[in-house]
Amino acid sequence: MAEFDLVERIRRRAGARADVRLGIGDDAALLPVPAGHELVVTADTLNAGVHFPAGTAPADLGWKALAVNLSDLASMGARPAWCTLSLSLPGAAEAWLDGFLDGFLELAARHDVALVGGDTTRGPLSVAVTALGLVEQGAALRRDRARPGAAGWVTGTLGDAAAALVLDGHMPAPGGATPVAGEEARAFLRARLHRPTPRVEAGRSLLGLARACVDVSDGLLADLGHICERSGVGAEVWLEALPASPALAAVSGARRAALQATGGDDYELCFTAPAALREEVAQVLEQAGVEATRIGRIVAGSGVRALAAAGSPWQPPHAGYQHFAPASPL
Amino acid sequence: MAEFDLVERIRRRAGARADVRLGIGDDAALLPVPAGHELVVTADTLNAGVHFPAGTAPADLGWKALAVNLSDLASMGARPAWCTLSLSLPGAAEAWLDGFLDGFLELAARHDVALVGGDTTRGPLSVAVTALGLVEQGAALRRDRARPGAAGWVTGTLGDAAAALVLDGHMPAPGGATPVAGEEARAFLRARLHRPTPRVEAGRSLLGLARACVDVSDGLLADLGHICERSGVGAEVWLEALPASPALAAVSGARRAALQATGGDDYELCFTAPAALREEVAQVLEQAGVEATRIGRIVAGSGVRALAAAGSPWQPPHAGYQHFAPASPL
Repeated sequence: MAEFDLVERIRRRAGARADVRLGIGDDAALLPVPAGHELVVTADTLNAGVHFPAGTAPADLGWKALAVNLSDLASMGARPAWCTLSLSLPGAAEAWLDGFLDGFLELAARHDVALVGGDTTRGPLSVAVTALGLVEQGAALRRDRARPGAAGWVTGTLGDAAAALVLDGHMPAPGGATPVAGEEARAFLRARLHRPTPRVEAGRSLLGLARACVDVSDGLLADLGHICERSGVGAEVWLEALPASPALAAVSGARRAALQATGGDDYELCFTAPAALREEVAQVLEQAGVEATRIGRIVAGSGVRALAAAGSPWQPPHAGYQHFAPASPL
Repeated sequence: MAEFDLVERIRRRAGARADVRLGIGDDAALLPVPAGHELVVTADTLNAGVHFPAGTAPADLGWKALAVNLSDLASMGARPAWCTLSLSLPGAAEAWLDGFLDGFLELAARHDVALVGGDTTRGPLSVAVTALGLVEQGAALRRDRARPGAAGWVTGTLGDAAAALVLDGHMPAPGGATPVAGEEARAFLRARLHRPTPRVEAGRSLLGLARACVDVSDGLLADLGHICERSGVGAEVWLEALPASPALAAVSGARRAALQATGGDDYELCFTAPAALREEVAQVLEQAGVEATRIGRIVAGSGVRALAAAGSPWQPPHAGYQHFAPASPL
């Protein structure tokens, strides 16, 4: 594999964006940040065997490597703009690279994101992406703005990606085996795992309404825990309220709740908003094309309490979500 | 290894910078780009066994991983500001991480660069850095601005890093064995390889004087070739003129020329400037604390011709510089 050939292959396909003053082909890219905006920067790496099964289709991996980064921008309420890609490949890999770029650039095009730099290196398969976005000055959604009394929300549905991992034997089933009937339902769950939808429009629409926000990558309880820690508050989560897709709804209650509360990789947004803004929140998210569900509330104190149906505390079958989970953000 | 523990370890030491509105600890960082400036972005990855020998001291690796990125910013004439770090580590590695951060953060502090995000993951040792800098609007040094008649220059000395690789058996000696006498000389060469100096001040001082610029990471002939390709010009390089450190000066002529012309990893700047600006160039670089040497000229046509003493064409012993070379930039 000649590294420069791969670079040229990427450059030919990288697409354009009107505001890029200098993209791939120099020592660095030159980009404009418009007045009244802040730059939003995130970096996430996916490693073979850690964040994705070794046999993952290259196009799925390309999509997901960008999606997890755009999801971080979405959780800040930012508009994605540019990205860099550092790709380590074990060997000659033109066909693999083409497939990878199919997925990566398809998602980039949907969000008008330009690939402006990075590198290709020899090494064990690893994909490091840095995504750059823009947000109106002072308007970004952050983890440290949750206040007691606020409502806790999530977009979309939870537990689908974790169910796909269980389905394909990549993760032990919490609380025992989790049968999912029907090829269509299985395909849906796998698509949720491999082709997550970064909630960019939802994040944008929440500016001025939501207070704290995080994307669900490590699992709802863990990620809401990050909000609590940074905000100096506690939270209650109502397990019965967690939104489930039709494919997951067939899974019995306790098993489903575990997948939904602790499974990662869903890349939905979890956010807090003043309880009085309930109508507005539901409305702007409907306009953004995604359902929103109230799943709990912010309380004084610390930590996240998951409450079962009767309001009694619930102990998740396992505390973390380490395998095939996204990288730990700094 | 608990990933969050490593993140917390990094966060505690990451340092600060007054303009960072939100750094490590959220889904993304929030950064201001002042009016009248462009954002400059570069990403370079170092993989064990490819870009550095497996036994490299962690502090050296930390320094170098940031240095190669700051060098890219320097070659654009940019002022470094922020960076992200994506670190893949094979296992429990607190002591290793501490050493790595010693080197990384020492260099970051010298250039007032804030570490604002990234991630830690399990995987084969790999260090992916994205560096962000600022340059006055429209002023950046680029690869595509070389014109026939311009003088070609380099900062500092060439061939030191390649000599260190030969010395320690990591690279075959071009043209046969290359003895370097004296422990002091060897230590100097190894420091040049492991602790390169990004020429940030030199790059800044060249704004308005230099036209095209690149950093010497793949080897002088290759990197000047990048300028020629992007600018649609050719270049002559005078091998006798290539600046050698005292440590390298002891190596006999032909062998030294090969190291200097084709060896990478020196991270000096190679740039072009109108011939009439000779005095000014030498003066501003002296003020920036680095020597500058005229090493050739830009000509019409294409490709780089290396000329031996008598002006006759010279064929380098090997064409590329693949092993322990920096990643191919996109």
